[in-house]
Amino acid sequence: MKTLNIGLVGSGFMGKSHSMAYNLLPQVFDPLPAYPRLRILGDITEDLAKKGAKNFGFEDYAVGFEEVVNHPDVDIIDITAPNHAHKEIAVAAAKAGKHIYCEKPLAVTLEDAKAMLDAAEAAGVKTLVGFNYLKTPATLYAKQLIDEGKLGDIWHFRGYFHQDILADPNLPFSWRFEKKIAGSGALGDLGAHIIAIAQNLVSDIDKVSALTKTFIKERPQASGGTGYSSTADLNAPKKTVENDDAVHMLTRFKNGATGTIESSRITQGRKVYLAYEINGSNGSIRFEHERMNELKVYFSDDPEGTKGFRTIITGAEHPFYGSFWPVAGCGLGFGDMKTIEIYQLLDAVANGKDLKPDFRDGYKVSQVIEAALKSAEEERWVEVASV
Amino acid sequence: MKTLNIGLVGSGFMGKSHSMAYNLLPQVFDPLPAYPRLRILGDITEDLAKKGAKNFGFEDYAVGFEEVVNHPDVDIIDITAPNHAHKEIAVAAAKAGKHIYCEKPLAVTLEDAKAMLDAAEAAGVKTLVGFNYLKTPATLYAKQLIDEGKLGDIWHFRGYFHQDILADPNLPFSWRFEKKIAGSGALGDLGAHIIAIAQNLVSDIDKVSALTKTFIKERPQASGGTGYSSTADLNAPKKTVENDDAVHMLTRFKNGATGTIESSRITQGRKVYLAYEINGSNGSIRFEHERMNELKVYFSDDPEGTKGFRTIITGAEHPFYGSFWPVAGCGLGFGDMKTIEIYQLLDAVANGKDLKPDFRDGYKVSQVIEAALKSAEEERWVEVASV
Amino acid sequence: MKTLNIGLVGSGFMGKSHSMAYNLLPQVFDPLPAYPRLRILGDITEDLAKKGAKNFGFEDYAVGFEEVVNHPDVDIIDITAPNHAHKEIAVAAAKAGKHIYCEKPLAVTLEDAKAMLDAAEAAGVKTLVGFNYLKTPATLYAKQLIDEGKLGDIWHFRGYFHQDILADPNLPFSWRFEKKIAGSGALGDLGAHIIAIAQNLVSDIDKVSALTKTFIKERPQASGGTGYSSTADLNAPKKTVENDDAVHMLTRFKNGATGTIESSRITQGRKVYLAYEINGSNGSIRFEHERMNELKVYFSDDPEGTKGFRTIITGAEHPFYGSFWPVAGCGLGFGDMKTIEIYQLLDAVANGKDLKPDFRDGYKVSQVIEAALKSAEEERWVEVASV
Amino acid sequence: MKTLNIGLVGSGFMGKSHSMAYNLLPQVFDPLPAYPRLRILGDITEDLAKKGAKNFGFEDYAVGFEEVVNHPDVDIIDITAPNHAHKEIAVAAAKAGKHIYCEKPLAVTLEDAKAMLDAAEAAGVKTLVGFNYLKTPATLYAKQLIDEGKLGDIWHFRGYFHQDILADPNLPFSWRFEKKIAGSGALGDLGAHIIAIAQNLVSDIDKVSALTKTFIKERPQASGGTGYSSTADLNAPKKTVENDDAVHMLTRFKNGATGTIESSRITQGRKVYLAYEINGSNGSIRFEHERMNELKVYFSDDPEGTKGFRTIITGAEHPFYGSFWPVAGCGLGFGDMKTIEIYQLLDAVANGKDLKPDFRDGYKVSQVIEAALKSAEEERWVEVASV
Repeated sequence: MKTLNIGLVGSGFMGKSHSMAYNLLPQVFDPLPAYPRLRILGDITEDLAKKGAKNFGFEDYAVGFEEVVNHPDVDIIDITAPNHAHKEIAVAAAKAGKHIYCEKPLAVTLEDAKAMLDAAEAAGVKTLVGFNYLKTPATLYAKQLIDEGKLGDIWHFRGYFHQDILADPNLPFSWRFEKKIAGSGALGDLGAHIIAIAQNLVSDIDKVSALTKTFIKERPQASGGTGYSSTADLNAPKKTVENDDAVHMLTRFKNGATGTIESSRITQGRKVYLAYEINGSNGSIRFEHERMNELKVYFSDDPEGTKGFRTIITGAEHPFYGSFWPVAGCGLGFGDMKTIEIYQLLDAVANGKDLKPDFRDGYKVSQVIEAALKSAEEERWVEVASV
Repeated sequence: MKTLNIGLVGSGFMGKSHSMAYNLLPQVFDPLPAYPRLRILGDITEDLAKKGAKNFGFEDYAVGFEEVVNHPDVDIIDITAPNHAHKEIAVAAAKAGKHIYCEKPLAVTLEDAKAMLDAAEAAGVKTLVGFNYLKTPATLYAKQLIDEGKLGDIWHFRGYFHQDILADPNLPFSWRFEKKIAGSGALGDLGAHIIAIAQNLVSDIDKVSALTKTFIKERPQASGGTGYSSTADLNAPKKTVENDDAVHMLTRFKNGATGTIESSRITQGRKVYLAYEINGSNGSIRFEHERMNELKVYFSDDPEGTKGFRTIITGAEHPFYGSFWPVAGCGLGFGDMKTIEIYQLLDAVANGKDLKPDFRDGYKVSQVIEAALKSAEEERWVEVASV
Repeated sequence: MKTLNIGLVGSGFMGKSHSMAYNLLPQVFDPLPAYPRLRILGDITEDLAKKGAKNFGFEDYAVGFEEVVNHPDVDIIDITAPNHAHKEIAVAAAKAGKHIYCEKPLAVTLEDAKAMLDAAEAAGVKTLVGFNYLKTPATLYAKQLIDEGKLGDIWHFRGYFHQDILADPNLPFSWRFEKKIAGSGALGDLGAHIIAIAQNLVSDIDKVSALTKTFIKERPQASGGTGYSSTADLNAPKKTVENDDAVHMLTRFKNGATGTIESSRITQGRKVYLAYEINGSNGSIRFEHERMNELKVYFSDDPEGTKGFRTIITGAEHPFYGSFWPVAGCGLGFGDMKTIEIYQLLDAVANGKDLKPDFRDGYKVSQVIEAALKSAEEERWVEVASV
Repeated sequence: MKTLNIGLVGSGFMGKSHSMAYNLLPQVFDPLPAYPRLRILGDITEDLAKKGAKNFGFEDYAVGFEEVVNHPDVDIIDITAPNHAHKEIAVAAAKAGKHIYCEKPLAVTLEDAKAMLDAAEAAGVKTLVGFNYLKTPATLYAKQLIDEGKLGDIWHFRGYFHQDILADPNLPFSWRFEKKIAGSGALGDLGAHIIAIAQNLVSDIDKVSALTKTFIKERPQASGGTGYSSTADLNAPKKTVENDDAVHMLTRFKNGATGTIESSRITQGRKVYLAYEINGSNGSIRFEHERMNELKVYFSDDPEGTKGFRTIITGAEHPFYGSFWPVAGCGLGFGDMKTIEIYQLLDAVANGKDLKPDFRDGYKVSQVIEAALKSAEEERWVEVASV
């Protein structure tokens, strides 16, 4: 079996989840498309890099990304660094001829995303963007049903990604609220995922009319934290939030479907409410990530009297599930999506297969985000291709 | 106890449901605010009027609406005639000094709605528009929670009314698809309900950006039917559908909230999917009519660990339920909303109480519909007050 | 159209719900099998009888049941008097040659139930026991699916009826807790309903092993109330509860199925949790009354990948729903079950049709209750036929 | 940090899931209580052992269990061999002074379970039985709520473990249907899990009345397979199934609670329907493994009007979740329960902490199973302590 050497940049939350997946792969898949060798991990300080390499099982570590990207053994560069650093790393990786696996969003600005796409396509390397929510057995199966025409023509898409993680106005200001570092707010962080799903399951998006709003206009300053959990000193001076707490978007799809896409980081009660409903001429599909092992499907040609949304519990008859467990209902978790994602990455690199969503798909997501921001600012419909 | 004499115009589906409610009132409410006497029923033919009066328990019948509207005994005119006839009947009723209970939508055109409002306000009569979905114990309680501030500031509203009742392209052309008679399609027929709920629970709507689409562009002609159930001769000539199968709308509310309102008459799998979710700074509420005896509520100040949407099963501690049954979970049905609606009507007329939603509220719904149609046609945001 | 004259005994909660149904019938069903004329209502005091007759729409009233039972006009005696009075009234009604519609349970003791059955069969009158939960479109359709063999052989039945209505130990002592008046507790009051469903949907029950327990052993005395809502003086002397708060039962059915039946009146959080699940060799069905307009059905011969419980929302393609509303999802309520029940009563009496569940079915329910009480007391399996 | 050396016996499905957990631990927990070193894996053939060691990341392999059990480095023996082999391995491990982690059920016979318990207690080693369903954040939190008295006195327990995995009568005969190898059927395989939960959350079980039945009395012979997926030659000779397809059980708990426990391997539509509901004097809890990231909780002292089951989505405020992901709703899967289980194992061994459920708990589960089998055979209540 071939071995593929991994160079990981970033040892935070996403670096951890990628590493979990690499370490699980050999137990889950038999046969493996290739054996992932955790060759080297880079982070911005020696402490972080060293600790990450030890905890995650990497052989070496490096300070910064350059040594990782240019390491002669390394086949695949895995980028989990902060979003605004994606471009520099990815372009360097492409130049070094490495395949690239980059966390979403592709970049903070559309220009950066374009530069990454161009560099990767020029280098002819494989690329993958970490829109992991596409990788549940449920959503992979939804795509299969749609592609087989089981829902007929697709008429409507409704997609959401709501969380209440930042609904508390006392949560301190952090990089998440800075335009320069984070780009947009709920739109880029959460909405990007559901835009990627919309594109993947329905078709490219043609034009959008969007509305964004920042409800919590300023937050107390704090010295650190991700903005999720630390509580700021409430008497601290306040800093202005620079990006959107919520976005609502009308969408026209290239295939003629119409719909809405929304996301909010201040929706009380919603945790990872990434959900979508797709209505076609012959049926409907609904998925909610908080119940990620279920897919609801309605077929309009079921016999009279027995029509109803089926709650399908994913199992061995759905994509990838059977590699984990033999029995439906055991249940996959968040980490398992990453394991599937990385299986596809290794399989594509080792066996020359197609890989989705690639940088082109990721760039299109960035285009939709850009179009939505423009639409919201100018209060008008914006064609995605125009940005 | 006072008696209020009812004159009903229209003996179709809604006439039936109103009559069921009048007949139930004395068994349900003790004491009654007033005793409803079913005085006279008018319909367009003698056969229909006579049969309606007999089945529904009216003392007299009349052909047409004039005799009903001008009947000296009658206190309240109840209009369940086709939508395009509302105006003429309501204006005549107002002139005759009668209180008016009119099915939704108030009228097919904004001009008609305005004429009705003006006539009623000039006459000083009580008015009520039959947005019955406002009358579930669940939604009445939702309003109470919001008014008491239990959700904090209201940030988001998401409302839907989806059905699959017209998703079959072989269903014949009917009046529902004609602009002149029906006005808009899914927007006016279904969306009106959810607009009324949005206004009632959140605030007036300031501006909208809407997208409408007719997916099934033509339908086979048929000689009769409501368009719901009869199957046309598939070789019959086709007629062009003149109004929207679906509408998606971005909304900005006067109170600062943002949201979406959608409705579709071709959404496979959805029956009476009138649903809304409201997110405030301190909690959220979700309701789905297909489970009309439940309200889901989330409070962000619940103790750590036990936060979660509560599934409240409506019972005697919620508005009006206890008049029907002593125990939560017995369950109310569609007809019971009308019974509550009519209780409020009699109570307002007999005791001079406020009545909501009145013609002014109904007119505002029509304004939102008009603004949405304009927005969709001109592909731009439209202020509701501007139409 | 034939008219059938109704004599109602009892004007409490169930008398009210029956009257609501009689009054609704002519609006709901077209054509009616017979027109129900509300001829006379009897109750134990003149005040109650007079008020009941007025509120419920009866022409006459009487003190006591004798005049009602022997009234020359009356075709059908409707018994909603307290359970311990059923026997005397029913036997008198049978002797008078009247058809009998009796609320459940048939009687407090098995002996009384037998006397009622014998009297009715000797008189050759139609009988109906008010196990109204059998009359939802969902459960009527479940029976149809089972009878058509869509679930294959029936292997398991699991039935529940749980409430929290008496879970508060401070609720005062009432007739419900007295063995002589109420008979058993949760078993007879709630369990009877689910036993009737088990018999109707699966088969007769062969033998049972039961466990009963009184968790709240004594309650404060109070001067009145039903025990549901009034709060006793907590310093009042306590009285010993004489019947079961909860029952759990293993059941062997005549057709070979195995299962459990449970009910409890002290189950926190459950309101009208009358629920059942039936598993057959080819599929399963689940119903929960708190969502009475839904039926969940699983077919094991659905194609691989799309197997899952369907949530069917009852509509015009299911029994009786279409008489109420044209569109699935509008929703029926508790009262509508009674309307369907009374439709079947009138149809059977007017047109000589079969009527289920009749006194024989009701007697079998009483036998199961008796067998369960014996089983619990003697801590052993008891054959139903042996009691 | 201390290192604990693991010796695994068995490389099948459960061996795989344990190995996944060992490999994940260092990425998930920071700090680790001890570092798990995968020292040696034993299986019955060299091929299996070698392949297992490679795929799962063990340094060495051995044929059979003796070398593993007696390996000088090994601290913990992890037994995932077939159930009937547990005793011999565990007793040898205890004699060698190793801590023991044994998959459920402890043994096939009560005698074997007793021998294992005695050997382990004599040796004074730590023991853990792999009832992994106890290890979800939801169930660990449920226990916490109960222990804190949040539900008041516990009155009812209802537990299920239903699957449809063997509902197809054409699935071939396998070791699962042989009494000598598998012991009981649904009872020991599935029911054991829910018995363990009942004991853990409520109290020890005092006495049971059980009913078992084999619905599919014979199955076609096949040369191999687990009985789950291979399809036998339908013309193959049939072999008699020797154990129960389903069990229903009444239970009396030592703390006074009453309830039912059921399991079935032929329940169409149910996948891993391990579910329980617990009703106390002040509240209720419900859990269903198919939605393992949710816990439903009802508190009777919530304010009037807002009482309802809360759907809690487990997150960082619940046991162990935060070690995996920072945000509620990401979701854990089946494997993550094992990771938590093994964390507790290492923590107990490294730091001398208590470990539950240990062999004594596992033995009690075996006693309940034995009592249930006896009860079913003799058709009478059986005290658990009497077997």
